[in-house]
Amino acid sequence: MELAEVVARLSERLREMEDREAIRNLVAGYGPSVDAGDSARAAAIWAQDGAYDVGGFGASHGMEAIAALFDGPTHQGLIAQGAAHLLSPLHIDLDGDVATAVGYSCVFVRDGDGWRAHRVAANRWTFHRTTGGWKAAERVNRLLDGGEEARALLAPPAKT
Amino acid sequence: MELAEVVARLSERLREMEDREAIRNLVAGYGPSVDAGDSARAAAIWAQDGAYDVGGFGASHGMEAIAALFDGPTHQGLIAQGAAHLLSPLHIDLDGDVATAVGYSCVFVRDGDGWRAHRVAANRWTFHRTTGGWKAAERVNRLLDGGEEARALLAPPAKT
Amino acid sequence: MELAEVVARLSERLREMEDREAIRNLVAGYGPSVDAGDSARAAAIWAQDGAYDVGGFGASHGMEAIAALFDGPTHQGLIAQGAAHLLSPLHIDLDGDVATAVGYSCVFVRDGDGWRAHRVAANRWTFHRTTGGWKAAERVNRLLDGGEEARALLAPPAKT
Repeated sequence: MELAEVVARLSERLREMEDREAIRNLVAGYGPSVDAGDSARAAAIWAQDGAYDVGGFGASHGMEAIAALFDGPTHQGLIAQGAAHLLSPLHIDLDGDVATAVGYSCVFVRDGDGWRAHRVAANRWTFHRTTGGWKAAERVNRLLDGGEEARALLAPPAKT
Repeated sequence: MELAEVVARLSERLREMEDREAIRNLVAGYGPSVDAGDSARAAAIWAQDGAYDVGGFGASHGMEAIAALFDGPTHQGLIAQGAAHLLSPLHIDLDGDVATAVGYSCVFVRDGDGWRAHRVAANRWTFHRTTGGWKAAERVNRLLDGGEEARALLAPPAKT
Repeated sequence: MELAEVVARLSERLREMEDREAIRNLVAGYGPSVDAGDSARAAAIWAQDGAYDVGGFGASHGMEAIAALFDGPTHQGLIAQGAAHLLSPLHIDLDGDVATAVGYSCVFVRDGDGWRAHRVAANRWTFHRTTGGWKAAERVNRLLDGGEEARALLAPPAKT
């Protein structure tokens, strides 16, 4: 193989690492943004027309609706009480300009002199590469309450 | 240094990043697989002759025995109740075709209108590079109950 | 562009990935080191003159003071009881030889036949590249108890 080809292949491999890192870092900013009360920054994890479907609350479509969800009384009540939206490491499937990922979210809420696990949920994310970097197209969240829906969300996506 | 040598060195550095990413992604699939009830997929994180030694339950040797553990009444009871096997980020020591890693596991189980931390454990993993990618050769899990065993598991591995 | 330039740019991009990985791995060693009772190893995550400011306890300046904090009665009491210092994935901002990162810490402590979330906190880290690799210059930790201080810590750092 010509050296130029070797270098081109290296660049492709590196881009895959960068893509995975970008997605990981994007999602790692979710908790800090919502718990700091910076709803606009949290909503900017999604694309303009992205969707966030929260178990027990229904789906919000578009960045503005997602920011409004974070500005709403339920979320604001949690952070006033003391809350941590801790997200687990993601299992990421990257396929060119699209990626899916699954992971857990655990919302800890201040309770007495400790914290309780208020919501523990399965999450499936879809990401798209955009001109502004990787953005979430969809996040589906379902409480792990023993029901089938959350378990199905954690199962591997069908490969297309 | 010749450019070809520079490129060869870059490729080695990149492979180390890819190896770390592969191990991280492998382990990030553990919780989703066991909580979805996909025991075969969870067991395939291990090599065919891999071992999983679970604090309080003893060791399972081989992929079939590991899958049987996940199909058993204890695990199935947890996921029917609502469970999340959340694993922390790993501290990875990579050494060519072998890697060791330490991290935490926390099993949340549905309890009333919240979740409780049912098991919190130390985990030490050993991984091998195989023709089918990185696989776990061994996972040792010990409850963090104040005993010496779990604490020893978290201590740095002796370098050979 | 000349091939040598392409290769030089690749090397820079790769170093950024390596830096992020090094920071992630450094922090992933924190919990295992403190919970194993290896205070010197835990303190070596910081630079010699690094600082650790713990919500409710005040700031320790320098590696020796930080190790002494881990050797003190509060921390030793927790690990004797059974403790896990689980740290979430970090949101990392890398800028050459300096990086900042935010994330959560959750200290689980053995309680009856389960574990309770004893401390749930926001953490902001500053890292510097040193001749001995990436080291923490500062870690500020604040309990997520509904107060402004922890929430401010999670907000994005002002870009300089």
